[in-house]
Amino acid sequence: MAGMIQHSELTFETPGRGTTDVTDAAQAEVRKSGTLSGTALFFIQHTSASLIVCENADPQVRRDLEAWLIRAVPDGDPLFRHTAEGPDDMPAHVRSTLTATSLTVPIVDGRLHLGTWQGIFLYEHRTHPHRRRIHLTITNT
Amino acid sequence: MAGMIQHSELTFETPGRGTTDVTDAAQAEVRKSGTLSGTALFFIQHTSASLIVCENADPQVRRDLEAWLIRAVPDGDPLFRHTAEGPDDMPAHVRSTLTATSLTVPIVDGRLHLGTWQGIFLYEHRTHPHRRRIHLTITNT
Amino acid sequence: MAGMIQHSELTFETPGRGTTDVTDAAQAEVRKSGTLSGTALFFIQHTSASLIVCENADPQVRRDLEAWLIRAVPDGDPLFRHTAEGPDDMPAHVRSTLTATSLTVPIVDGRLHLGTWQGIFLYEHRTHPHRRRIHLTITNT
Repeated sequence: MAGMIQHSELTFETPGRGTTDVTDAAQAEVRKSGTLSGTALFFIQHTSASLIVCENADPQVRRDLEAWLIRAVPDGDPLFRHTAEGPDDMPAHVRSTLTATSLTVPIVDGRLHLGTWQGIFLYEHRTHPHRRRIHLTITNT
Repeated sequence: MAGMIQHSELTFETPGRGTTDVTDAAQAEVRKSGTLSGTALFFIQHTSASLIVCENADPQVRRDLEAWLIRAVPDGDPLFRHTAEGPDDMPAHVRSTLTATSLTVPIVDGRLHLGTWQGIFLYEHRTHPHRRRIHLTITNT
Repeated sequence: MAGMIQHSELTFETPGRGTTDVTDAAQAEVRKSGTLSGTALFFIQHTSASLIVCENADPQVRRDLEAWLIRAVPDGDPLFRHTAEGPDDMPAHVRSTLTATSLTVPIVDGRLHLGTWQGIFLYEHRTHPHRRRIHLTITNT
């Protein structure tokens, strides 16, 4: 199965601001593709939700990251003029810019080659629930 | 046209600090390459200008992002010692590190597969105009 | 040598918080692979160390970046609850999220196609020394 490129779409219903672990869903796509060696490109098609690779063992880590982001990019900051969609809208764009829209992970032995404590998370930055799409491109040269 | 890799260079004259939309120029390169399915790697060859994926409809979003960055990484901050090239030089390096130097976007149906509200922007972080180069690598496995 | 994908691992012993230039080690891997045209994916398998592309001429730039990060994400910040591993642990996760876990660089004429002043650095965010692994995936379509 050399020289293959496969596109798929992972869709998630977020419960509002916070992280959703997408590692297992992505590992399942890699397995289905039959790719033993290659790369997986995660591309989130939004500008107020983003991707992070983060510690996956203690949920406090993501809670603390959120606490830091709330302080660094406060909702309703009078600095912002793009406020028509609510006090969390512009902070969501800034947070997305500070984290990742695009992320590539090696595939080795048929699996995403993550470190022991790494998970891949969709980060919803809006306070309300949203449907979010991550485009996954698996390449096997 | 399988197994193709194509390198090209997009050059932009920036008017000083701020964003330049490079989406159309990149879409034109993808079209010219004849790639229907693949990936496009954007790599900016500078350390005081960077790449962002951002909301492309309301210019206030990028104005607000700039306002946030100016406050978070102030020009002329006495914290900085690397000041020989001016008060905006070291902040430009910090801003580049907080945003992206490298960005990969899927190509589907012959186009960069962006979300509806996503644009790709070159972010000039220096106050004076510069000529900036983005290296574009289009891969079609 | 078309349609090749090569995985290798670069290992570094960091002396504690700060940057290690990994450009030469990566260029050597590219040379060994015999790849003239392609891409190199750097993926760091940790969540408290990360990757940056940064100015490589004046070490003050990285010293100033560190000064900014220390102020923006203070060690021992009472905001953080994930403190069992020490006051530098949670800041290391935040710093990793603000910089890069995954980075792709074009290969042109058998070399990483970096700008004149660009180097690739492993950024250790913990205060104590660690062994860190960067997975390098060289693709030659």
